This record gives sequence, structure tokens and C-alpha cells, in this order.
Amino acid sequence: MVLMDVDGVLTDGQMFHVPGPDGRMVEFKGFHALDGIGLRLLRGFGIKTGVITGRRSPATEDRARSLCMSYIFMGFLAKTAPFERVLSETGIRAEEVAYIGDDWTDIPVMKRCGLACAPANAVEEGKKYAHYVARKSGGSGAVREICDFILKSQGRWPAIMEMVESGKWDSLPPENPVVVNAHQPV
Amino acid sequence: MVLMDVDGVLTDGQMFHVPGPDGRMVEFKGFHALDGIGLRLLRGFGIKTGVITGRRSPATEDRARSLCMSYIFMGFLAKTAPFERVLSETGIRAEEVAYIGDDWTDIPVMKRCGLACAPANAVEEGKKYAHYVARKSGGSGAVREICDFILKSQGRWPAIMEMVESGKWDSLPPENPVVVNAHQPV
Amino acid sequence: MVLMDVDGVLTDGQMFHVPGPDGRMVEFKGFHALDGIGLRLLRGFGIKTGVITGRRSPATEDRARSLCMSYIFMGFLAKTAPFERVLSETGIRAEEVAYIGDDWTDIPVMKRCGLACAPANAVEEGKKYAHYVARKSGGSGAVREICDFILKSQGRWPAIMEMVESGKWDSLPPENPVVVNAHQPV
Amino acid sequence: MVLMDVDGVLTDGQMFHVPGPDGRMVEFKGFHALDGIGLRLLRGFGIKTGVITGRRSPATEDRARSLCMSYIFMGFLAKTAPFERVLSETGIRAEEVAYIGDDWTDIPVMKRCGLACAPANAVEEGKKYAHYVARKSGGSGAVREICDFILKSQGRWPAIMEMVESGKWDSLPPENPVVVNAHQPV
Repeated sequence: MVLMDVDGVLTDGQMFHVPGPDGRMVEFKGFHALDGIGLRLLRGFGIKTGVITGRRSPATEDRARSLCMSYIFMGFLAKTAPFERVLSETGIRAEEVAYIGDDWTDIPVMKRCGLACAPANAVEEGKKYAHYVARKSGGSGAVREICDFILKSQGRWPAIMEMVESGKWDSLPPENPVVVNAHQPV
Repeated sequence: MVLMDVDGVLTDGQMFHVPGPDGRMVEFKGFHALDGIGLRLLRGFGIKTGVITGRRSPATEDRARSLCMSYIFMGFLAKTAPFERVLSETGIRAEEVAYIGDDWTDIPVMKRCGLACAPANAVEEGKKYAHYVARKSGGSGAVREICDFILKSQGRWPAIMEMVESGKWDSLPPENPVVVNAHQPV
Repeated sequence: MVLMDVDGVLTDGQMFHVPGPDGRMVEFKGFHALDGIGLRLLRGFGIKTGVITGRRSPATEDRARSLCMSYIFMGFLAKTAPFERVLSETGIRAEEVAYIGDDWTDIPVMKRCGLACAPANAVEEGKKYAHYVARKSGGSGAVREICDFILKSQGRWPAIMEMVESGKWDSLPPENPVVVNAHQPV
Repeated sequence: MVLMDVDGVLTDGQMFHVPGPDGRMVEFKGFHALDGIGLRLLRGFGIKTGVITGRRSPATEDRARSLCMSYIFMGFLAKTAPFERVLSETGIRAEEVAYIGDDWTDIPVMKRCGLACAPANAVEEGKKYAHYVARKSGGSGAVREICDFILKSQGRWPAIMEMVESGKWDSLPPENPVVVNAHQPV
């Protein structure tokens, strides 16, 4: 399983606020197309995915759903509780989880999981706990780089290159994600 | 004819999601002014253009229409079928088509077309299949660079520079594009 | 007087399209705060300003109005006609006008005006006609750099630094700009 | 107390304008997630925060409120008056205030406060008055870097690293900020 932070990992860290159709402010942010292909492939090979983020944003939920993620935790600065919940609900062990984080709030989960990853733009303390630091930054393909690393490590590369050359991309099975909103966004 | 991918080619790969006026999420992205002038010139010299993208977005359709593109395929990860449809409908041969792509999904068409191009930010596997790799990145003028390359190759440069110096820009003929939406966006 | 292009000059060239409140697509783009202070100062010293752009966007009009510009021409790929109109309406001579442009469409006016300027990101042909090429790029403060260059050349620097240190910023006189929309955006 | 400018400090200086739900133009801009954690920590250690900006934007107010700032001054090019108001209302002395600014309008307050800071992208005249120039630029974590610098200087680092490793992030106390809108945006 691959879990990850959102801001600074799936994005470059920038967040925008505009009035929604009802006049209330809505937060949005920029996701990257390269990451989408990587996360899609993980799912195609049976690897579940999810996000644990300190912020709440309909953009995050929309993006995570379109990538068939299994868990969407929003508003969690303290990320250990949702991480433990995922382990207990799925029966996956912490050592079997890769986690991608860029900031202090990610460190407790990075210490617990089997493969801790950080994008190039992570804070120094975050990189210290990472087994793998991507050459790319969040929002510029860091997650894709890590997906490729995982898929290569698992010997999936020949099958992927065959799929790439033939252009045969299967539909993903529908996913009904667990979505949890907490109350303390930053 | 010049066909191209959208995300990472006409944009830098970033995609944003905001609630539209009806409350449903809408995807938007950033296109570049330099590319617009290049694509306009292609059309002015009778070269048809079009996009084949894995995603669906009203922003893509809006941009493609304003550039008088002939084909707008959205939601196609498998790009060979729309490519073959263009060939059969227009009678243009694959060798006469230039295609610009940046990711794995573009490779089957890059192998088929006459001139395969990639922006500087393309994935390594994509660059491998490109005859021409732009110095600029997608969303920063890579498509314009490729348009200029094609127009120079066809001996159009003196006519263009004359148009540039005189400032006489003709209106483009109206185009009624073929717009096709598939069901599997990533 | 200082006239300028918009996309690639007051912005980095990126344009975004989202549905407006009535569902029709609206174009928006990013302007830079540094440029705002520079253009405000020009106005404060009695130098009129304006934009001539190939595109139409409510964002451009909104920005130009808030900077008390005198002329807002939108939808003009052929920029000589609006340029000549400004000269004839204001009685200013072409040699007294600075123009900032980044692309081919700007060249005819750059050849006519007294001080032709280009941002660092301009196309090569555009830089060729520039008397002054900014070190900064469009949308990152290139226009501010050019404003500072002009104000310094006119001996305004001591007065500006005094204003800066005292923090006394006068209100600008209200301006009722000439706004013209043409029909051929790219 | 830490006061700061917004555009070019909490953002990269870019501002976008889109029609809001009522059709009137709204300004928005991109804030950075890293800065949010830093400003939250300041508050957690009892250091008040606030913004003094030349522009008015609901995005600024929304962001400042979510970070539990105490003062939100918008539309103030002349920043000394709001600065003095903060001193007199809070009883904090100018020497106890850090101020982060990037442009000429910030200089009078930078000269008055105890610790003047500037992001890497500040104008030269602004850097001249800064005691601390961040290595990072506005909108890319410059404010976070300055928050870390202040918290380290005050000996808070061991307590923060303990909080980071344990993942225990307290809720912030609710704040009812002073919000003032002036009439002269740029």
C-alpha cells in the first residue's frame, strides 16, 4: 500500500482560495498529470493508495477519487491515528506500507512505515527520515518517480513497458473510498 | 497535420479542480500564449491541428476551439484508435502527421507518426521515441518551438517574417471541430 | 507614455480558462504585485499607461483599470492601428512612447516607438527589436524593472526614494480609460 | 509579534482575478503549506501574527483567519499607521516586533521594527533594510524559514522536535482578528 501527504507532495505546496458558487471560500491546488499515470498503475497492479492531509479541500477529494484511492483522510495534522486505522482495517502491516511526506507532520508515520519517501522539496527534518528522496519535487512528478521506483522494485517494469508500447490501458475497478474529515486544518 | 497531447505538452502538467457554477468540480489548466501564435500560424498555412488527451476538461475544449483545431479527443489513454480515425477521415497518411507527446500513453502514436516530438520535460521513455526534443518545456512554449521548426522546414519563414514585420494577421477560417469524449480519464 | 502587451509581459504567458457564474468560459491569468507598484509610480509622475493585447479577458481589463491605465485595447493581433489611435488622440509623438512586447505581434509597434523593451522571456525576434531587454521575465517583475529604468532615466529616483522612506503614497487621480474590444483573439 | 506583507512574502507575488458568484471580479493568490505550519507554531508559542497589505482580497482574509492571525490590514500602501495602531493596542514595543516585507512600501515599517526580514525575491532596496534575508522566496517557504529562525533563537527547537516526533499537535485557541479595509489598493 502507498499512502501520502497532499500539499508539497502531490502539489508544489501552493494553495489557492476562491469563492465557490455559494459564496463560501473554497481551497484548490494543482495536481500533476505524471503522478496520475503512476498512481493509476499502482492500482492496476493491486497496490492500494490513499492520502492523509492536514487540510480539507474538495479538490483533494476529487483528485483522490478519480485516482481510485482507498482512503482519503483530510484535516489530520496528527497522522498516526489514521495510519493505524488503515492498518487495522486492511490487515496490511506497517512494513508493507510506503509513505510519502515532506514536512514535520509526516515524520511520525515515516518512522512507522516500511518505506519512507520524500520529494526533493521536503524540509530537512523530513528528508532525514526518508529511505528514498526523490529527485523531483512535489507537484512536478515526485510521486510518479516513487511509483516507478516501487513498480521496478517489484519486477513490474517489463509488463509495464509492454503495456506502454501496445497502448492497452485497462479500466480501473471502481473504488468506494473511506473519506474522513477531521476538524483541525492548518 | 499536427496532433498533440495536452497535459505536459500544451501545459506544464499541472491540473486544478474548482467547483463550477453548478457546484460540480471542473478541471482547469494553464495554456501558453506563445503556443497560440504558433498553432494559429500552422492553421494559416493550411496545416490541420488537433489534441488527443487522456483527460476531459472544458478548458481543453475551449482552448482547442479558439485555436481552430480540427479534432478534440478527450478521455483517451489509448491513443491509437483516435489517431487511426483521424487518418481514415482525412485521408492523411501517418507519415504526414507530426505528434507531440510527453508520457507513456503517447508512445504508440509517436511510433506510428512521421515526426515524433517531445517537450524538454517529457519522461525518458517518451524522449526515446522522439525525432525532435524541444529545448522548452510543455506549457512554456515547447509547442511554439515545434511549430516554428515545422514552418521553417517547409520554407515558410520568409513569408512569416514579412507578416510579422507588417503586422498583417489574417482572420482564421472558422472550423467546426470533431469533438469526442471517451469514458476513462486519469 | 508607456504601452505594453499583456500575455508574456504583464504575465508569464500562462492563461487559464474556467466557467464563469453564467457557465460561459472566462480567461484569467496571473499579474505580479511588483509591476503594480511600478505602474502606479509612472502614473503618479504623470506618465500615461495602456495595454494592447491580442486576447480579451475580464482579468486584463480589471487589472488595467485598477492601475489607472488610460487605454485598454483587447483582441488586437495587429497592434499598429490602436497604437496610431493613441498617438492621434493624445498628441503624443511615437518617439515619446515606450512599448514593452515579447512576441512577433509586438514587433511593428516596437519598430515605431521611441523606446522598445522586451522581458527576458521574449522570443528572439522580439529581443532583436528591443532597445532594452529586462533581466526579469514577464509576470516576475519585468515591467517593474522597466518602470524603474524609465523613472531613473528621468531623474525621479531621489524623489521616489524619499517617498519610499517616508511611506507617503498619494492616491492616484481617477482615470476613465478608453476600452476597445476587437474580434480576433488568439 | 510577527507582522508581514502578503504579496511577494506569503505569495510569489502573482495575483489572479476571476469573476465571483455574483459576477464581480475577485482577486486570489497562492499561499504555501510550509508557511502555514510555521505560523501555526508561532501562535502555539504565544507569538501573535498579522498582515499589513496594500491590496484587498477575500483570499488574504480567509488565509489569515485560518492561521489565527490577530490583525488583518488590507488596502494599506502606507503601512506605518496600522503598525503604530498594533503597537498601541497590544502594548508591544516596536523592538519586539519582527516584520517581513519585500517591496518599497514595506521599508518604513522595516526601519521601525526590531527584526526586519525579507524573502530572497525582495527588491534590492528592501533587502538593504533587512536584518535577515531568507534563502527561500515568498510563496515558497520564506515565511516558514523565518518562523523557524525565530523559534530557534528563542530556544523552542527541542520542544518543537519533540512535538514533531510524537505527532501531538494541539488545537489553536480561537482568535477574533481585527480586520481593517482601507480604500487605496494597488
